[in-house]
Amino acid sequence: MEMIAEVKTVEQTNEARNAKELDSLFKPKAIAVIGASAKELSIGNVIIKNLLHYGYTGKIFPINPKESTIRGLTAYPTIFDVDGDIDLAHVIIPSKFVPQIIEDCGKRGIKSVIINSAGFSEMGEEGMALQQAFLDNAKKYGIRIFGPNCQGIINTDPAYKAYCDFTFTFPESGSISIAALSGGVGAVIMQSIFDLGIGMRMYASNGNACDVSIPEIISYYGEDEGTKAIILYTEGFANPSAFMETAKAVAKRKPILAMKAGRTEAGAKAAASHTGSLAGVDISTELIFEKTGILAFRNEEEMCQASMAFATQPIPKGNRVGIITNTGGPAVIATDELVSEGLVIPPLSERAIQKLKETQLPEASLGNPVDVVATGNGIHFRSALDVLMNEEQIDSIYINFVTAPFTDTDEVARQIVEVSKTRRKPIVCNFMTNMSMERYRTTAKILKDGGIPCYAFPTTAAKALGALYKYHKLRTKDIGTPIIFKDADKAKAHELLDSAKNSGREFLSSADVYTLLSLYGIPVADWQIADTAQEAARIAKKIGFPTVVKAESESLIHKSDMGGVAVNLKNEEEVADAVEKMKRKIENQGMKPLQFLVQKYLPGGKELIVGVSVKKGLGHLLMFGIGGVYVETLKDVVFKITPVTEVEAREMLSSIKMAKLLDGVRGEKGINRSKVIDIILRLSQLVKDFPQIQEIDLNPVLAFENGAFTADARIKI
Amino acid sequence: MEMIAEVKTVEQTNEARNAKELDSLFKPKAIAVIGASAKELSIGNVIIKNLLHYGYTGKIFPINPKESTIRGLTAYPTIFDVDGDIDLAHVIIPSKFVPQIIEDCGKRGIKSVIINSAGFSEMGEEGMALQQAFLDNAKKYGIRIFGPNCQGIINTDPAYKAYCDFTFTFPESGSISIAALSGGVGAVIMQSIFDLGIGMRMYASNGNACDVSIPEIISYYGEDEGTKAIILYTEGFANPSAFMETAKAVAKRKPILAMKAGRTEAGAKAAASHTGSLAGVDISTELIFEKTGILAFRNEEEMCQASMAFATQPIPKGNRVGIITNTGGPAVIATDELVSEGLVIPPLSERAIQKLKETQLPEASLGNPVDVVATGNGIHFRSALDVLMNEEQIDSIYINFVTAPFTDTDEVARQIVEVSKTRRKPIVCNFMTNMSMERYRTTAKILKDGGIPCYAFPTTAAKALGALYKYHKLRTKDIGTPIIFKDADKAKAHELLDSAKNSGREFLSSADVYTLLSLYGIPVADWQIADTAQEAARIAKKIGFPTVVKAESESLIHKSDMGGVAVNLKNEEEVADAVEKMKRKIENQGMKPLQFLVQKYLPGGKELIVGVSVKKGLGHLLMFGIGGVYVETLKDVVFKITPVTEVEAREMLSSIKMAKLLDGVRGEKGINRSKVIDIILRLSQLVKDFPQIQEIDLNPVLAFENGAFTADARIKI
Repeated sequence: MEMIAEVKTVEQTNEARNAKELDSLFKPKAIAVIGASAKELSIGNVIIKNLLHYGYTGKIFPINPKESTIRGLTAYPTIFDVDGDIDLAHVIIPSKFVPQIIEDCGKRGIKSVIINSAGFSEMGEEGMALQQAFLDNAKKYGIRIFGPNCQGIINTDPAYKAYCDFTFTFPESGSISIAALSGGVGAVIMQSIFDLGIGMRMYASNGNACDVSIPEIISYYGEDEGTKAIILYTEGFANPSAFMETAKAVAKRKPILAMKAGRTEAGAKAAASHTGSLAGVDISTELIFEKTGILAFRNEEEMCQASMAFATQPIPKGNRVGIITNTGGPAVIATDELVSEGLVIPPLSERAIQKLKETQLPEASLGNPVDVVATGNGIHFRSALDVLMNEEQIDSIYINFVTAPFTDTDEVARQIVEVSKTRRKPIVCNFMTNMSMERYRTTAKILKDGGIPCYAFPTTAAKALGALYKYHKLRTKDIGTPIIFKDADKAKAHELLDSAKNSGREFLSSADVYTLLSLYGIPVADWQIADTAQEAARIAKKIGFPTVVKAESESLIHKSDMGGVAVNLKNEEEVADAVEKMKRKIENQGMKPLQFLVQKYLPGGKELIVGVSVKKGLGHLLMFGIGGVYVETLKDVVFKITPVTEVEAREMLSSIKMAKLLDGVRGEKGINRSKVIDIILRLSQLVKDFPQIQEIDLNPVLAFENGAFTADARIKI
Repeated sequence: MEMIAEVKTVEQTNEARNAKELDSLFKPKAIAVIGASAKELSIGNVIIKNLLHYGYTGKIFPINPKESTIRGLTAYPTIFDVDGDIDLAHVIIPSKFVPQIIEDCGKRGIKSVIINSAGFSEMGEEGMALQQAFLDNAKKYGIRIFGPNCQGIINTDPAYKAYCDFTFTFPESGSISIAALSGGVGAVIMQSIFDLGIGMRMYASNGNACDVSIPEIISYYGEDEGTKAIILYTEGFANPSAFMETAKAVAKRKPILAMKAGRTEAGAKAAASHTGSLAGVDISTELIFEKTGILAFRNEEEMCQASMAFATQPIPKGNRVGIITNTGGPAVIATDELVSEGLVIPPLSERAIQKLKETQLPEASLGNPVDVVATGNGIHFRSALDVLMNEEQIDSIYINFVTAPFTDTDEVARQIVEVSKTRRKPIVCNFMTNMSMERYRTTAKILKDGGIPCYAFPTTAAKALGALYKYHKLRTKDIGTPIIFKDADKAKAHELLDSAKNSGREFLSSADVYTLLSLYGIPVADWQIADTAQEAARIAKKIGFPTVVKAESESLIHKSDMGGVAVNLKNEEEVADAVEKMKRKIENQGMKPLQFLVQKYLPGGKELIVGVSVKKGLGHLLMFGIGGVYVETLKDVVFKITPVTEVEAREMLSSIKMAKLLDGVRGEKGINRSKVIDIILRLSQLVKDFPQIQEIDLNPVLAFENGAFTADARIKI
C-alpha cells in the first residue's frame, strides 16, 4: 500500500514568477532531444516521431553521438554542435549524467528542460542528491526544469503543434487544458477528451515536479487566451496555501475541474483530539477546492464528460431547467438526476404553454418536460427550443434526442445548433443513437460541429448540466472577508502563550485556557481556580450555584472518564465533598491533582463543539458541530479553512445534519445563532494571530436562547 | 410534471402461467405483420426490414390489402389468405380496428400478438375501453398480448434471429437479456451493451404491458439457458409482491441488475404519521430490490458497464482484491473506489512477494497493488496474475493496463486471457489505450475475444468489480424465515379490531392500542384508564410513581403539543391536579376529553421508534430508528419489508447512523438489543396477521439495559 499512501512532493515556490517564463516550455521554436535514439519504440525515438507526426512547426535537433540521422533528421553529437537558438531540451539519458547535461544546457542558453528520465527523488537518497545537483545547475543558469520522471507537455496551438510527450493520443485543437501530476491518469483524461470529440488546448504532466509546479501551470493556463476550462488531477499538495492563492485567481475567470485521488487513506488516520481525528486528509482537499472555487469530482469519467459542456456552453444563471424530450423514460431518469444535482424543473408560463399548443403535434405533452414525441420533427424541436429560450424562469435546456428512424434527424440537429448559437442559455443533449450507422453519424457531426455537448445516457447528460450549475454557484458565491475584532488583546495573549511554551507545557492549564479565550472575547462560564476544598466551596458561593468542579492536571486528558469532574453541585458542602472525593480518587490512580477549577454550571443548553486544528501548509481547519459526549457517535460536524468569514460561519450552522436542532424542536427554544457565529469568528482570529497553536477544542459550547458559553475547553500549543 | 409522476400499470396476474407459453412470442417460426407498409421509414415497413436485415430464420407474412409485395416478400390481404401456421403477429393498425383483428388472430390460431400501435390505456377512457375489448377477445382464444404501445421483442438466438422491433441497433448474440418498460430507456441500454461490445440474448419492451408482464418476462429469462444475467428497467410496480415472488427465484440463479426511475418524486409526498412520511416511494423500491436479491443501480451507464463483468466473469467469493498495474495514478484512483465499494486490498503473503521478487523487473513495486511498471511485459503480467490467482487471501483481480508504446501489448493481453480461462477468480481490466490506432485495436480484440471486461477509466472498472462483489453478498445472504410467536392471541386481537372498526374509529383508543400490543406480547409501560381526577390519582398510586397522564380523545393527534400530556408526576395530588388542568385546557379548545390514560413513567431509557405502514400491493414497511421528539430532526431510521426476520431486525439495529448510541457512550449502559428485536418481530407478526392495519407508531419505545417498553403508541386501522 506504500504506493497509495505516497503523496508526491510538489515544490510550489515558483508560483509568483511571471507565467511568461513558461513560454519557452509551452511555445518552443526549437527543441533538442538529448538522448535521441534510432531504436523504434524507445522514448528517445517516440518523442521525435510524435513531434513529426503531430506537425511541430519549429526545429527538431536529435542529439546522439553515434547516429548521423534519426527519423530522417540530422542528428548532432552534442548540443554545442547545433547552429541557432534552442528554447527547449528533452533529456532522456541515464540519471547520473543529467547534472552535467543541465550545466551544458545552461551554457548553450537553453531556457527550459523536460527531463523524461527517471531515477531521482522517487528512488531514495541517491536519486534525491542527483536531483539537487541538476537543480543547482539549473538555478545558476536560470533554466526552468519540467519533471524529472515525467511525460512532458503538449501544445495543440496550430502555431506550435508541440507534442513534447511520448504518449499515443493526438488530440484535436480545442479549449480544454489539462494539468496532471500522474502521467497515467493524465493520459486517461487526454484519451477520454479525444474519444468524446472535445478539442484540447494544452497538456502538462510534470512527474516529480521539482521546479515547474502545478500552481504555475494553472496560472499559465489562466493567462492563456485559448484555454477556456482547465482539468486538474493531483494526489496531494505540498504547499496548499500557495496553490489556493494562485488557483483562486484563475478559478474566478475560468472553470477548473479537479480530482484528487488518495481520499480513502484519510479514514485510516487517527489522532488524540476530536478536531484532529475528524479532519482527515480528504476533508482538507475538498475544503481547498471549495474555498478556491474549484469544481471537485470523485470520478474521472464524470469530470471528462462534464468538461465537454464547459468547453462549449455558457454558464447558467440559475438552477431552473427546461427539458425537451422525444421519448418518455429518459426524461424520468433525467429529472431524477437533475433534481439530485440541486436543479429544478419548474412549470412553464401560460404564455409558453399556449405557444407550444400552437406549434406542437396533438399527441405532444405540453409542460416541463415538453414531450415533442418520437414523431416530432425539426420544427417541433425548434418551437420548443424557442419557447424555452424565451421563457424567463428557465436558465438552461436539457434535450433528450432519440434518433427515431421515421424523422429527419439531421434537421432536428440543425435546429438545435441554430438556437444554441445565441449562447443565451446552456444546452446539453442526451443523444441516443447508433453511431455505427452512417445516417446517424451525419446527425452527430452536425451537433458536434455546432458545439452541442452530446451524451449517450440521460444520467450522464444531467450530471454535466449539474456541473455547469455547480460552477455557477461557486463563481457567484461571495464569502466576504473575515471580520477583525479590535477588542482582542493580542499582546497579552502573546505573553500568555510564550510563558506557557517556556514552561514546557503541551496543553495549556485551565486558567490559561479560559484567560486566553477571554482575551479574544470568547464567552466562558464563570470560573476560578482553587487549591483546597474550602477555597473551592468559597469560590462556588461567590460564582453562584449550581457549580461544576474539575481537577486540574496536565496528565488528565479525559477528566470525566477518570473521576476528575463533578457537575451540578448545589451548595458549599457538595462542592467541598466533591473536591475531597476527587482528590482521593486521583491520588489512588497515582497522579497528583495540583488545583481545582470551580466553574458555573449551566444546565439546559444545546451542546455544540467548536474546534480548530493545524494542517501543515494550510493554516488551521475550523470545525463546528454537535458537541458533548456524543460528538464521536453523531459525527455531525462541518469544517472550513481559516480565516472563516461570517458568511462561512453562518453556512456552517446551517449545514450540519441536525441544523434543525438549533432552531428548537416541538416548542423548545432555538439557540442564538449570532452568539455562536461570534465564537467561531473569534476563534478563527485567535489562530490566525497565533499560527503556533496546534489545536483548540471548545466542547461543549453551551448555546441558549440568549447567549453561548464555553463550558469546557482544551488548547494544545 | 405529469409525465414524471405517471407510473405505468403492469398487470402481473400471469406470473404463475407456464413460461413456455411465451415461446410463441420469443421463438416464433412464422410472423405475420398486420399493417405492413410499403412506405419506407413507417413502422409497418421498418419491422419487416429489421427482420430481414437481422436474418430472421422463420417465415414473414406481410399483411396489406393493397400491396402484392413488400420489401420483396409476397403480401397477403388478410391473415386468412396465408397458408401454414403463424405463431406471432405484429399489429400496426389504428387502435379502433385492433379488437376485431385480435378476434381474427384467435380464429387463425395465432398464439402471441405484439401490438405496436398506440391509442389505448395511455390515452384515457376511450383507449382503455378499446384495450379491454381486445383483451376480452384475446382471452377467449388464449392469445398472449405483448404491449400495446410498445417496441416489441428481440431474440438473438441464431436459431431464430427474431428482431420483432422497430429500433435500429442490431446486437451480437450474447448472454445478457433486457426487460424494459420504457422503450426509450430500453433502446439506450441495448445501444450501450452494443457499444461496449457485449453480446445480447433477448430484449423485451412491453409498453402498456396489459397482458405479458415484467415478472413473466423475468421468469422466462430465468428459464432460458442462454441468459446469464438480466437487466431490468422499470418505473414502478403495480403488484410488487407478485414481482418479488417471481424475481426472487430467478435472482438466486442469475444476477438481475435493475434500475427504477422516478425516485425523486417520492420526496414530495407527505403523510400524517412519521412512518408514513419517512417511507417514500423510492425507499420501497430499493427495499423490494434488496429483499428480492436484485442489484439496484441509480445510474444506467454504471448498470450497463457492470453488466459486461456479469456477462463474462465468475462471482467473487469475498471482498479481497489483488491489483496489478503498470502505471501509478490509476491504481490510486482504483483503490479509492474499490474501498468505497466495500472491497479491501489486503497485503500479500511472504511467499507471494518472494515469488514476485523472482519474476518482476527490479523497479517493480512488490505488494498489493503489484506495480509491474510501464516497461513490464507479458511475462511480468503473467507472473503477477499467477501469484494473485494462487494467493488464498485474494478473491478477485483488478488490472490497470496502459498500452505503453514500448511493450508487446498483444502478449500482455494473451497472458491475461490465458489466466482468466481457469475462471477461478473474476478479473476486470481498466484498459487505457487509443482505439483509433490499429495496433491497440488488435490488443483490445484479444482481450474482448478472451472474455475480459475492459473499461476506459479506473473508477469505472472498480465500480464494475464492486457490483460483482455486491451480488456475491446478495446471493449468499440468508435472512432466515420469520419467527412465529405462538403466544400471540390472534383471536382476541381479531375481536378487538373488528369492534373498533364497527364503531367507526380511524385510530384505536389508547386502551385498545395497549391491549392489542399486549395481546401480541409487546411490552408496554403499565397503564389504566381513568374517568375522573380522583380515579386517576387512585390508579397512579396502584401503578406506582412517577406517572404520566394523557388525555384520551380521538381528535387529539399531537397530544403533547396541545397540553394533553403531563409527565413525571410524583404523587396523587400532582396526578389529580394535572388531570383537572388538562380537562380545562382541552375544554377551552372546544374539545371533549373522554377519558385519561394513567401510565407508569419510565425515565432514562433510550428513545427509539418502531413503526409500520401499509404499502399498497406490498404489505407493510417496518421502520426502526431513533425516536422521541427528535425523530423528524434526526431522520435516523431504516426500513424493511414485512415479514421481518430476526437477521433483518438485528441488521436494522446496526444500520442506523447512531447505532453506537445503542451500546452506550462514555460509560453509559447499552440497551438490551434482544428485547428491541423482539418488539420488531412481534409487530411484524401483528401486521402480517392483520393486513388491514394502516399504520402503527410505537414512539417512543424506551430501551434500557434490561428491557424495552412501549411508552406511547398509535394505531390507524
